[in-house]
Amino acid sequence: MSAAIANRCSQLQPTAVNAILAEVRRLQGEGAAPVSLMRGEPDFRTPPHIAEAAAAALRDGRTAYPDNRGEPKLRRAVAEKLARDNGLRFDSGAEILITSGATFGIYAALAAMVNDGDEVLVPDPIYDAYLSPIRLAGGLPRPVRATLADGRFRLDPGAVEAACTPASKVLLLNTPWNPTGTVLRESELREIGAVIERRGLLLISDEIYEAITYEPSRHVSPASLSETLRARAILVNSLSKTYAMTGWRVGYCAGPKELIAAMFLVLQQSSRGPSTFVQDAAAAALTGPQDCVMEMRAEYARRRARVIESLKGLPGVRALEPEGGFFAMVDVRSLGLPSDEVRRRLLHDSGVVVVHGAAYGPGGEGALRVSFAAGGENLERGLARLRAGLERIAG
Amino acid sequence: MSAAIANRCSQLQPTAVNAILAEVRRLQGEGAAPVSLMRGEPDFRTPPHIAEAAAAALRDGRTAYPDNRGEPKLRRAVAEKLARDNGLRFDSGAEILITSGATFGIYAALAAMVNDGDEVLVPDPIYDAYLSPIRLAGGLPRPVRATLADGRFRLDPGAVEAACTPASKVLLLNTPWNPTGTVLRESELREIGAVIERRGLLLISDEIYEAITYEPSRHVSPASLSETLRARAILVNSLSKTYAMTGWRVGYCAGPKELIAAMFLVLQQSSRGPSTFVQDAAAAALTGPQDCVMEMRAEYARRRARVIESLKGLPGVRALEPEGGFFAMVDVRSLGLPSDEVRRRLLHDSGVVVVHGAAYGPGGEGALRVSFAAGGENLERGLARLRAGLERIAG
Repeated sequence: MSAAIANRCSQLQPTAVNAILAEVRRLQGEGAAPVSLMRGEPDFRTPPHIAEAAAAALRDGRTAYPDNRGEPKLRRAVAEKLARDNGLRFDSGAEILITSGATFGIYAALAAMVNDGDEVLVPDPIYDAYLSPIRLAGGLPRPVRATLADGRFRLDPGAVEAACTPASKVLLLNTPWNPTGTVLRESELREIGAVIERRGLLLISDEIYEAITYEPSRHVSPASLSETLRARAILVNSLSKTYAMTGWRVGYCAGPKELIAAMFLVLQQSSRGPSTFVQDAAAAALTGPQDCVMEMRAEYARRRARVIESLKGLPGVRALEPEGGFFAMVDVRSLGLPSDEVRRRLLHDSGVVVVHGAAYGPGGEGALRVSFAAGGENLERGLARLRAGLERIAG
Repeated sequence: MSAAIANRCSQLQPTAVNAILAEVRRLQGEGAAPVSLMRGEPDFRTPPHIAEAAAAALRDGRTAYPDNRGEPKLRRAVAEKLARDNGLRFDSGAEILITSGATFGIYAALAAMVNDGDEVLVPDPIYDAYLSPIRLAGGLPRPVRATLADGRFRLDPGAVEAACTPASKVLLLNTPWNPTGTVLRESELREIGAVIERRGLLLISDEIYEAITYEPSRHVSPASLSETLRARAILVNSLSKTYAMTGWRVGYCAGPKELIAAMFLVLQQSSRGPSTFVQDAAAAALTGPQDCVMEMRAEYARRRARVIESLKGLPGVRALEPEGGFFAMVDVRSLGLPSDEVRRRLLHDSGVVVVHGAAYGPGGEGALRVSFAAGGENLERGLARLRAGLERIAG
């Protein structure tokens, strides 16, 4: 049967989170009850006015085929949101595409840009789920090693330029940046943008954590920095994190019309976009009251403070304060163990689940990724176990 | 900018329906009001108990990430349905994948099976939306010319075998078969199955119209005919046509676990499956009362009779009675014009929209595809215009 499987599939792999989940389930099967500080899933419910908009659309019979580009009302809502929040003007008729989550947006952008053997530059460390879609599109991920200095991961524009080869076609950025917690600054993005222009790269900019930033950091959309950058960029976003809508599978992309047209052709052959009534609810989310977003952000800020507080004073351990997102990187280099070994001991000896930084690339070695997407009792018990476990390892 | 677009996109194209829709919209912009007998969209609303299941799931907060393989409850419902309706046993844990509609199922099956340059055998004529996903996966569509005899399109097993080359890897079937209206018979499928086995092909079997068949025709799932065929087949289905759920974008695939595992990896990099609460509603559709399906089938049967009745006695025109689905092929060969020219005259001179058979391959030349997915006044007015238009063309 293996001859039946296309070669491309052998290059695809589940994410680190999925692999660790399988390990956790085995332990649970043996009676263990580990506390998870791993997932990127908010523990908030989708705000009621959004769920109600979907229910109302269902009552209105909004169950026929959606416009494959996305329902016009939702595309207009996205255009308004991008103008309002990001200072970007896009034509909702030709420059916006509604997708089945940001994952599909990234996949469609890669499929529209990448030929066999093209390189896609990716920061290292980076969310590991980017790598398989790059390979699915026939591309080769080319890591750009981040530097960790003064408690912050940085992407050096010089390192981006140095990593470029004639085969490099795309740079993929994620800001706020999972797993590092860095929010790329305008000055940094301008310098990286200059490299993109000089090298004739395209940019895929995944901005799904944009609403979750902590003062004084604020999200800047790279495409907003210059017309030339806008002309080379696909902005990818989703409602998953901003509105606690992970299970709705609805996101959007914006960019120059030629690229959006190519992505649209890819989408037509595969997912054909989210359910019609889901698109109505997404429009309600983007155009309705935004208090829910501010409340969630304030709660994430409290959780972030708890993470930093609870790991203070541990020998050989330093929690890096994230500027955005709901992950904190914990620097455990001085423990002198591979991060995967630290992760494994924490899971087996102390019953707490985190992700080893090395899962996100060699640049993540020496760190652990701790999620505070879930709060409350789960977070408190998880942090207590994490502290005790790290103390035990430091022994 | 065109250098930015990956080569694969130049091979993708919108379907004939999309191209004709653009033409219709231009005419509407000029004040015309053509009646459409074109779309494959049922005019039924989704049955209320299914919509209510989605609303209830929303109230229950079923908005977190779905299981990427599909929610276990829905996978079990699919396994039960396949056992009940198709005489097929599949393990819901490893042999079923929930997809964003059948379109995604076909795409994932192709991506999991096809290497660059592999041939995918497709009947000619066939639903033209299969061709672009084959190219997106790097495959080459290889047509197998159907024969039209005694008012029925047939797929000759000998023609399938004759079309095979060493590069042929997959046969794609659609039964009930769009646009021809043929429901492949068990004896035909057994003979085609023998070719599949002899040639070591894989089978993708798109069965989305399975619930819409007319006595004495009945749907047979190819995988149910032998263990060896089951081991080489991916069954693709969707709730769109059976339950009037086109806009929900929910479907499923079943097959041997190695192929399903490969398709799952493709799905994880792209759509990640339908919304969680949509999956709950889909489970309710499959496990709930099936009266709605029988009622819709009975209504389609009445519409089918209206199509055949209304085109009777036209000189040079013969409506073929479909065995399944909601399209009738109308044989207009004796008009002596290309089918696209007939379609164009019907649209511009008589204000009725149909699809030319040639849009589905050279094997469809000489026929028109007439949809009765929508009924009532639309169907009556459309048929009256179609009859008058054909009379005018016959002169």
